[in-house]
Amino acid sequence: MAGRNWFNELHTSSSGILLEISKPIAYRKSSYQEIWIFDNPVFGKVLVLDGCVMTTEKDEFFYHEMLAHPALTTHPKPERVLIIGGGDGGTLREVLRYPEVGKATLVELDRDVIDLAKRHLPSLSISFSDPRAEVVIGDGAKFVKTAKSSYDVVLVDSTDPVGPAEILFSEGFYRDIKALIGRDGILALQCESPFLHMDFIKSQKKILSSIFGRVNFYNAVVPTYPGSLWSFAFASDSVDPLELKRKPPEGLRYYDEHIHRAAFTLPPFMRDEIER
Amino acid sequence: MAGRNWFNELHTSSSGILLEISKPIAYRKSSYQEIWIFDNPVFGKVLVLDGCVMTTEKDEFFYHEMLAHPALTTHPKPERVLIIGGGDGGTLREVLRYPEVGKATLVELDRDVIDLAKRHLPSLSISFSDPRAEVVIGDGAKFVKTAKSSYDVVLVDSTDPVGPAEILFSEGFYRDIKALIGRDGILALQCESPFLHMDFIKSQKKILSSIFGRVNFYNAVVPTYPGSLWSFAFASDSVDPLELKRKPPEGLRYYDEHIHRAAFTLPPFMRDEIER
Repeated sequence: MAGRNWFNELHTSSSGILLEISKPIAYRKSSYQEIWIFDNPVFGKVLVLDGCVMTTEKDEFFYHEMLAHPALTTHPKPERVLIIGGGDGGTLREVLRYPEVGKATLVELDRDVIDLAKRHLPSLSISFSDPRAEVVIGDGAKFVKTAKSSYDVVLVDSTDPVGPAEILFSEGFYRDIKALIGRDGILALQCESPFLHMDFIKSQKKILSSIFGRVNFYNAVVPTYPGSLWSFAFASDSVDPLELKRKPPEGLRYYDEHIHRAAFTLPPFMRDEIER
Repeated sequence: MAGRNWFNELHTSSSGILLEISKPIAYRKSSYQEIWIFDNPVFGKVLVLDGCVMTTEKDEFFYHEMLAHPALTTHPKPERVLIIGGGDGGTLREVLRYPEVGKATLVELDRDVIDLAKRHLPSLSISFSDPRAEVVIGDGAKFVKTAKSSYDVVLVDSTDPVGPAEILFSEGFYRDIKALIGRDGILALQCESPFLHMDFIKSQKKILSSIFGRVNFYNAVVPTYPGSLWSFAFASDSVDPLELKRKPPEGLRYYDEHIHRAAFTLPPFMRDEIER
């Protein structure tokens, strides 16, 4: 490995990943975080926020497809979608694959993330130019507290639940979202790794269940994320997460109607903890 | 990370994993390979062969349960099981959970792997003392060429398809197994990562399909393996991989009858390549 430069990220106190930096692409210290993009021969461009890999060109489809499509295929009429976070644009791209979506509002705290994604991650940020996309630069927690519109689907595409993103996993935040989506809406959010963060997932289950009538979890693999097995929460009062209302769009790489059902099938070690 | 010792393994030319070595446990250069066991605060004891993580105490259940149980729950009468490789004992442990199994023969090339697993990985090697376990030290490819017994299920628990294990992915080897299991038997084998090794998986599908009437693939997550999404091949002439003949044993952590079906649900990017 001599003469080569390596990025490393610890996923636990004593384990992590290594990625070669074949070419630094961009570095910016924004008002909120350090943003770094570098190229890797296998994973393509890698987006790093405060030392944590957010996404890579090679494996981003696992995460973005699985955050967006389970909610979009099961909502009866997903016309208005709100995305909290997701400044790289990947979740927005998946949402706008549906002609039913008339408007998708993305609320991102850090303008610089969107700016750098538009310049350097075109396969993710492609949908910022869609006329149905509305971008709000601001605090997602404040936005949902004061928003006047209602939404059919809210997707929380946050960083890990530490620092600025901690509030995006709080009861108050979820109550504000509930007020925006009403009885018929769906909230879906990334919810860390069942392999490494089961206590966190259990606490989220408890909070969400105090607000929404139905709370389910589903899993996908995200190779560059801690633990690789990654969970998402699906919360609603009225929507059955296993009843698909429409076909998924063409051209997806990880998600389809069969993977949808498979993803909601939790392994015993996770099911036992959540249902306890 | 100063003052701490780190193991790293490249999973591709330019990506890999990092594991802290909190305590070296054993190191031996056997006739076949370098065997290393060290302790990690999160993953427990880690078994490394020639620089590649074979298994860790924390995540071994994903792999061993998923190699053994799909074949064991679908075979009509799995009385005799042959394991090729698997010297750590994890697959043997899963096989012997079934009272139907009267004898499980494990053929391991490297006596030192079994010896070190017995000493240092008791949660994996526990079943070597089961009276139904038979251990043969020798070359798995030669064993299946000359074996006189027949088997109901053959599980290939090999290292990656380079060096000594290359023959365990060859047409001749599979033909010899076919002769031992006949029309009613099942062959299941670990088959690398769909995320990183799709060309290899396609070539295996082609070879296996020239020998067995039905060839299916299924996936599981194995956090410490390259790509994290890991595939297994399931080959038989007569057994429907989705028709379970018995309940799985109690106490499993990843596998159950629902995960069984979910695992055979392939994501589009893999299904499209395999069915092409």
